[in-house]
Amino acid sequence: MNRLFVIKIGGNVLDHPDALEKFLHDFSSIKEPKVLIHGGGKIATKIGNQLGIESNYIQGRRITDAATLDLVTMVYGGLVNKQIVASLQKLGCNALGLTGADANMIKAVKRPVKDIDYGYVGDIKQDSVNTSLLYFLLKQNTVPVFAPLTHADGKMLNTNADTIASVLSVAMSKHFDVRLIFCFEKKGVLQDVNDLDSVIRHLPRKLYEDLLGKKAFVDGILPKLENAYAAIHAGVKEVLIGEASDLVKNTGQETEGTLITL
Amino acid sequence: MNRLFVIKIGGNVLDHPDALEKFLHDFSSIKEPKVLIHGGGKIATKIGNQLGIESNYIQGRRITDAATLDLVTMVYGGLVNKQIVASLQKLGCNALGLTGADANMIKAVKRPVKDIDYGYVGDIKQDSVNTSLLYFLLKQNTVPVFAPLTHADGKMLNTNADTIASVLSVAMSKHFDVRLIFCFEKKGVLQDVNDLDSVIRHLPRKLYEDLLGKKAFVDGILPKLENAYAAIHAGVKEVLIGEASDLVKNTGQETEGTLITL
Repeated sequence: MNRLFVIKIGGNVLDHPDALEKFLHDFSSIKEPKVLIHGGGKIATKIGNQLGIESNYIQGRRITDAATLDLVTMVYGGLVNKQIVASLQKLGCNALGLTGADANMIKAVKRPVKDIDYGYVGDIKQDSVNTSLLYFLLKQNTVPVFAPLTHADGKMLNTNADTIASVLSVAMSKHFDVRLIFCFEKKGVLQDVNDLDSVIRHLPRKLYEDLLGKKAFVDGILPKLENAYAAIHAGVKEVLIGEASDLVKNTGQETEGTLITL
Repeated sequence: MNRLFVIKIGGNVLDHPDALEKFLHDFSSIKEPKVLIHGGGKIATKIGNQLGIESNYIQGRRITDAATLDLVTMVYGGLVNKQIVASLQKLGCNALGLTGADANMIKAVKRPVKDIDYGYVGDIKQDSVNTSLLYFLLKQNTVPVFAPLTHADGKMLNTNADTIASVLSVAMSKHFDVRLIFCFEKKGVLQDVNDLDSVIRHLPRKLYEDLLGKKAFVDGILPKLENAYAAIHAGVKEVLIGEASDLVKNTGQETEGTLITL
């Protein structure tokens, strides 16, 4: 099967124009089919503050009320997404900005209210991706750029960008050998949290379980690793966790970041 | 050839939730291939005021400075576009929100500075539309929904929605018999400006020239009629000017609005 790179960037790239410019340049240089998923960054908070929309937390969890939903729809779906698309077009990369609502790309359900009402937040099921259109676009050399938004029942829904990246990767695994790349703030998963150079370059399941037994991972990285293995067990070939600035190397065989495999 | 409806709505629909809901319901009931182009409406001005972005005029012409460009990219490309897309999805219409930047749908040039520097405003040439992807999407029963934005040189550009509707109609005329529908605030072009019931139902070129000779048209409608004939001479089969609430009738043979033909 052909390879597909599904690449997620977050605030650590989006909030720094120079880093974003370098990243988009590197991204556009990838020859294989590719999908970009971007998070939000601080710009939504900044514009929200200017509009008097308060960040709303219940029991420490952020809530998406109606005003916040409008804010993220504007900022993620409009400003951030279209600026990335226009920049990529200039770089010769035929980007197409999307939310989950567009062409019903990713259906979701509004998160059910249990202890907390998260508001307009979308949960996605694995079989909710319009893979046929996505596959066609990729075959045409079009590059989908997803904002972290889905939809249900006529409403947009605020949706975790990591989750969108995972769901898209799993869905496209029937057509491609997918490498799902999470760009984060360190070079990779560290063997020693105090040594930034102790990146574990290759983390197959066996080594992961050994290290897990030795309690070698700090708490912050564990959910990421669990999500990575969940994606791999659902069909994704490889998950890479690394720095945005290492993107080009991280699409190759010898990676700078941590390559997670079965 | 198959028919295609290219339908443009402006503030008179967007600013009124009930009118918009009825319009989207009617729009989604159209069985033939269709494209929607929306303008801005008052919401951008309202949010701009909240953000302290001042409307900027030179010699009575509105200028799109950098702050205004960000504003319209957010509001038109994000908030308005995605709310329409999500609403149409609920109505069973497989809408796909687009700007001219997405998949390079509509290339433009930044308007050259002559007497006035209009700022980030896009002018479009007739051959700048990605007709092959648009044609594919329509054949797949996908419904493109365009925000009034194009791009050039890595920047989004604020672009007149009527112009986008005309350019798309002309470009798609090689694949379809296009009826370009402009929804405006009256039922159609009036024979007698003081009589709202004096709609000219059918305005072929010959009658247009007769009425023009008699100075029968008030100034406001003349540029619309000139643009309509320009589109028709460039290959569009029919242009209809009418009220949004008459949309269903205006897609039929017996129209409520003014049907402009050769």
